[in-house]
Amino acid sequence: MKATHIQLAHGNGGRLMRELLETLVFPALGCREAFTDASPLASDKRIPLMASDSFTVQPLEFPGGNIGSLAVHGTLNDLAVSGAEPAALTLNLIIEEGFALDTLRRLLESAGAAARAAGVPIIGGDTKVVPRGQGSGLVIASTGLGWRDAGCALDIRSVQPGDAVLVSGPLGDHGASVLMAREAFGLSSGLQSDASCVLELAHAVRDLPGLRFMRDPTRGGLASVLHEILQASGCGCELNEAVIPLRPEVSGVCQLLGFNPLQLACEGRIVAIVAVESANEVLARWQALPEGQSATRIGHLTVDRRVILRTPLGGQRYLDELAEDPLPRIC
Amino acid sequence: MKATHIQLAHGNGGRLMRELLETLVFPALGCREAFTDASPLASDKRIPLMASDSFTVQPLEFPGGNIGSLAVHGTLNDLAVSGAEPAALTLNLIIEEGFALDTLRRLLESAGAAARAAGVPIIGGDTKVVPRGQGSGLVIASTGLGWRDAGCALDIRSVQPGDAVLVSGPLGDHGASVLMAREAFGLSSGLQSDASCVLELAHAVRDLPGLRFMRDPTRGGLASVLHEILQASGCGCELNEAVIPLRPEVSGVCQLLGFNPLQLACEGRIVAIVAVESANEVLARWQALPEGQSATRIGHLTVDRRVILRTPLGGQRYLDELAEDPLPRIC
Repeated sequence: MKATHIQLAHGNGGRLMRELLETLVFPALGCREAFTDASPLASDKRIPLMASDSFTVQPLEFPGGNIGSLAVHGTLNDLAVSGAEPAALTLNLIIEEGFALDTLRRLLESAGAAARAAGVPIIGGDTKVVPRGQGSGLVIASTGLGWRDAGCALDIRSVQPGDAVLVSGPLGDHGASVLMAREAFGLSSGLQSDASCVLELAHAVRDLPGLRFMRDPTRGGLASVLHEILQASGCGCELNEAVIPLRPEVSGVCQLLGFNPLQLACEGRIVAIVAVESANEVLARWQALPEGQSATRIGHLTVDRRVILRTPLGGQRYLDELAEDPLPRIC
Repeated sequence: MKATHIQLAHGNGGRLMRELLETLVFPALGCREAFTDASPLASDKRIPLMASDSFTVQPLEFPGGNIGSLAVHGTLNDLAVSGAEPAALTLNLIIEEGFALDTLRRLLESAGAAARAAGVPIIGGDTKVVPRGQGSGLVIASTGLGWRDAGCALDIRSVQPGDAVLVSGPLGDHGASVLMAREAFGLSSGLQSDASCVLELAHAVRDLPGLRFMRDPTRGGLASVLHEILQASGCGCELNEAVIPLRPEVSGVCQLLGFNPLQLACEGRIVAIVAVESANEVLARWQALPEGQSATRIGHLTVDRRVILRTPLGGQRYLDELAEDPLPRIC
């Protein structure tokens, strides 16, 4: 293939599209065979789950990751926190005319590497090209199929007042690092996105009977997860602000720019709701993993239908859901 | 929800996004429950297949359909021609800031109605908003999970020289109708897209042992399907140009504008490769259905590695794959 940039014809179903797929997309993703219309998987007696997500992050490459690895991790993480073992992924590419093929290759190789590292094949997908000025470089939609044991009881409606709220690591790293990579604030730091696969974290705890519910706090951050729990279960939450793990760089940039770090996206963390007697066991298992060393119990669910932060001085304030979006295209 | 147009905050994971989902997206799609990260399906002993496709058609509404119904039909059709029974769909929405919510509702209601008509639930998905000027109104990516009997032998590599090439109806209606809806040629006609679900057509014939392979001819049209067969199997094809079903409006607009109708997309047709002794049975079963009344045997596979058209006067010419795209955003 001689082209160096995406042409409209790369999305037309004809020869140029086939060449793009054969010489760039399939090799980059590590697919052994061309995508067919629909792709068979090995089957067994467990329950299949599907997870689907689109990725529009800007910039496409950020400290600690890029849209390719993110599209794989994001969907694998949705399956992982649902208690499923991922079996296969599909990847849909929506590419803007004029996009550099070298960049496309680098991003897809990153997606392919992320899938291989997780042991999950990319078995299908689709490629569309939109005319210049009608797209945003590259958008990826990914869908995963996973299998969950029929006995898995993870359910947002099973949480109870008194349950412990745990997080697997520091919050807001992804949102803050994308923000700093994008906006010309003249800020610099060594902060990296937490974007990564949470399968190991989920594996480590999913057999514990006291584990009621897990979620990865992406857009809207921890605040959205806790409000979602409130909506679904009627349980509020009281957080101990002093112990919530936050990197100094994340706190700093949030103070400077007026963001709430608890509303910033993570892409490699888990929030778990756990029966109080199992909380220490979940923490111990997480802390034994490299990606769970900062795992912390940050609060508990309450009968009050409010999400509140208990401050170090003993006061309290509400933690709201994100409303207006100060930070679009974060994932 | 008071808004009338999409704001960036409708994609942020917070309250406005939740309101958009609860008051517009879920009701429009006919989803009973909110989407969760990953969605369980009923299981059995057949083999699961996944199909995934993105839709960027412009205009979003065209004679005979719109991007909503198209996103459902397109992915269901991929499963259908693979011999699978669709079980569930996910739908990813990538919406441009400023998009009218009334239009979004109408398009999603159309998607919901298409899914209900096919008896396939939409069980998950995702909503992203990109800033104004960085998108193209609405893009939808859909993924379907289906189940195929373990004994199904449909395979592009099983086709043989001498096999009959059948089409279920007139070709190019979708491409031509989108073209006429989009370009200001001052042309008008009653032409409608063929966009529709091919499940009934696939059901009618998929148990016939002589059925070797099916494909829905979308981007790149019949030409792309036949070249794909050539690439995969080594079999060329000889078509009898005089009998290929084409509507006069499609032939007319193609002659006027220099398009080849055999390279235009369909979105509700099947191309089937059938052992010659089963060809009449496939035709009879298709012709017994309303959507298959114009089903025709249009040629046969050959040992020559070429795709040729036998003309009414006895000459022949090559049918090329589409290369440069005269018609982007057709699906």
